[in-house]
Amino acid sequence: MDQLTVNQVTVQEIKLKEFCNSVWTRLGVPEKDAQVTTDVLVLADLRGVESHGVARLPRYYTDLKNGWTKPTDQSKIIKETKATALIDGGQSLGQVVGRRGMELAIKKAKETAIGIVSVRNSHHYGIAGYYSLMALEHDLIGVSMTNAAPLVVPTFGRTAVLGTNPISLTAPASKEKPFVLDMATSVVPRGKLEVYDRLKKKMPLGWAVDATGKGTSDPHTVLDALSKRLGGGILPLGGEGEEHSGHKGYGLALMVDVLCGVLSGSATGLGVDVDKAKPNVGHFFMALDPAAFRPLEDFKRDMDRLSQELKNSPKAQGQNRIYVHGEKSYARMEKCRREGIPVGTAVVESMRQVGTELGVPLSF
Amino acid sequence: MDQLTVNQVTVQEIKLKEFCNSVWTRLGVPEKDAQVTTDVLVLADLRGVESHGVARLPRYYTDLKNGWTKPTDQSKIIKETKATALIDGGQSLGQVVGRRGMELAIKKAKETAIGIVSVRNSHHYGIAGYYSLMALEHDLIGVSMTNAAPLVVPTFGRTAVLGTNPISLTAPASKEKPFVLDMATSVVPRGKLEVYDRLKKKMPLGWAVDATGKGTSDPHTVLDALSKRLGGGILPLGGEGEEHSGHKGYGLALMVDVLCGVLSGSATGLGVDVDKAKPNVGHFFMALDPAAFRPLEDFKRDMDRLSQELKNSPKAQGQNRIYVHGEKSYARMEKCRREGIPVGTAVVESMRQVGTELGVPLSF
Repeated sequence: MDQLTVNQVTVQEIKLKEFCNSVWTRLGVPEKDAQVTTDVLVLADLRGVESHGVARLPRYYTDLKNGWTKPTDQSKIIKETKATALIDGGQSLGQVVGRRGMELAIKKAKETAIGIVSVRNSHHYGIAGYYSLMALEHDLIGVSMTNAAPLVVPTFGRTAVLGTNPISLTAPASKEKPFVLDMATSVVPRGKLEVYDRLKKKMPLGWAVDATGKGTSDPHTVLDALSKRLGGGILPLGGEGEEHSGHKGYGLALMVDVLCGVLSGSATGLGVDVDKAKPNVGHFFMALDPAAFRPLEDFKRDMDRLSQELKNSPKAQGQNRIYVHGEKSYARMEKCRREGIPVGTAVVESMRQVGTELGVPLSF
Repeated sequence: MDQLTVNQVTVQEIKLKEFCNSVWTRLGVPEKDAQVTTDVLVLADLRGVESHGVARLPRYYTDLKNGWTKPTDQSKIIKETKATALIDGGQSLGQVVGRRGMELAIKKAKETAIGIVSVRNSHHYGIAGYYSLMALEHDLIGVSMTNAAPLVVPTFGRTAVLGTNPISLTAPASKEKPFVLDMATSVVPRGKLEVYDRLKKKMPLGWAVDATGKGTSDPHTVLDALSKRLGGGILPLGGEGEEHSGHKGYGLALMVDVLCGVLSGSATGLGVDVDKAKPNVGHFFMALDPAAFRPLEDFKRDMDRLSQELKNSPKAQGQNRIYVHGEKSYARMEKCRREGIPVGTAVVESMRQVGTELGVPLSF
């Protein structure tokens, strides 16, 4: 989306983090938890998922200010076995609860080869990839999913019932970058419609439907109807109807709601994150030890081989590179750490306003 | 695809099964294993996945006749923990090895809340859904995936490197039908191109690319180039390039190869099921006990509620029904059990030929 957003400034990672941390601590979040929350946000910007980065700070600020999110960690383990746990998030910060959930899954995977942790009563937790990436530090396969507020219309429907419900899976490699899949199960995120709307551009057909359930290329109508809950919304991966298998993307979104919402006893479907005072978001975390199946080095070597096989395969006319998932984000992260993180001026302005209200000066 | 294939006969399930069983046993497959192989095939026809049904009998026959598939079960557990196992399939029938794998995952889930079984050195195992459905009989969540021979072109590529690599996940419900997701990660299966080719119809753009990597609506060119390994192939879910997120479908296909191929030490990518004498297909099975997280009845009640919420949500103009995954297949299964299973006359003819070679008369 970079090339579409023209007005932006470049901010050093450390400056961005300092500001976010100050905001959270000023709102009563303990230093350690503030850092986690900041890390998740800034990682999204570093990896190029701006919609889930510091652009969300004002939203989290509002939630904390209104007491909808608890500043201190209220999460509790409700039920536990050797390989599984259910955590109640106690309406704490989704990032703090999410990190705790994944840490527990990792601990269990180290002892039992697998750990699955289900979380209920949490908040928006940022990018799914943050948590699955944690598994890589331990040479584990990591899985992270969350349900989310309804934005996605089921096949043959005309009302958003499911969230963009992302799936992230990571797997360690040796010389190659790790495999990092981190994808919404919708064809595009809402942020993409917002960019087209801002630029008054028509979007491709197959991204969204209007309030009658008909495909449309007008982002404004869709966003307007969504915000007023009049109907319409984003299409699942595969698009409208069944011709390009939109029912598969719908099925994946529903699978995520089953594993995040139903398994944990969180809200599901129309109920997720709609009541701001009780969002009741659900997450699913899994860590799996490849060494329980074969020597880790063999696993990593074969990850390299598969990665290389894909990247070395012949390119389509007009293309010069095939990517493996994660590569683009790692490249962007390195560039941003070298040159600074691009942040839209509108986002900077909204951060400045929060800073002014809290007495936290913005130094960029 | 039913409405596109005109020449078909209707065969009672029992007749179809008797014939298949006789073929397998005549080839040296023990009665019990023959029944499993038949059950997987006929379930595909019952559920409407004709491409994976008895149409495959001649292929399995050839594999057994040539010794590429071992008629008796050679599978062995290589490595095992409380929650995991690695099975070497010993080039036995994929259905027999697959069933053994899922049975073991279920046993482990009953003891440890989760069971994950990774399988290497197996064969094509039929529909992924057969194995995930097994979990439902035990009120467990079931997951089944397999890698497969290269047919799918990675985003920006022009050669098929990955298989149609399906994902199946099932979850039990109470009054509603269980959730049964069973989907190839490609936009369409090869069988769909074959149907369009047979009818000399143009297929929609966005299903496949030609040998240069360019989108095409000519199924014949694609199938011909694929069979001669000249390049081209089916697109991942999301279609060509990144505009409709084809990279997500590509990522899902790769994820399946990581979990099936790399995790087990099977062939991956270009190497899967290409050497007929050593297909080395990999599978991934998981069973998960929802009761480890919350009371089973609560889980099932919320599955019902989510299902109903989707089905009762407003329909797009011109549509009168929203489906939840599995519903169509259950309806088709009931109809086929009542009225018989439609089988294409060309398929019947190919079965008759096998029967003639083996001295097994075809009674339909």
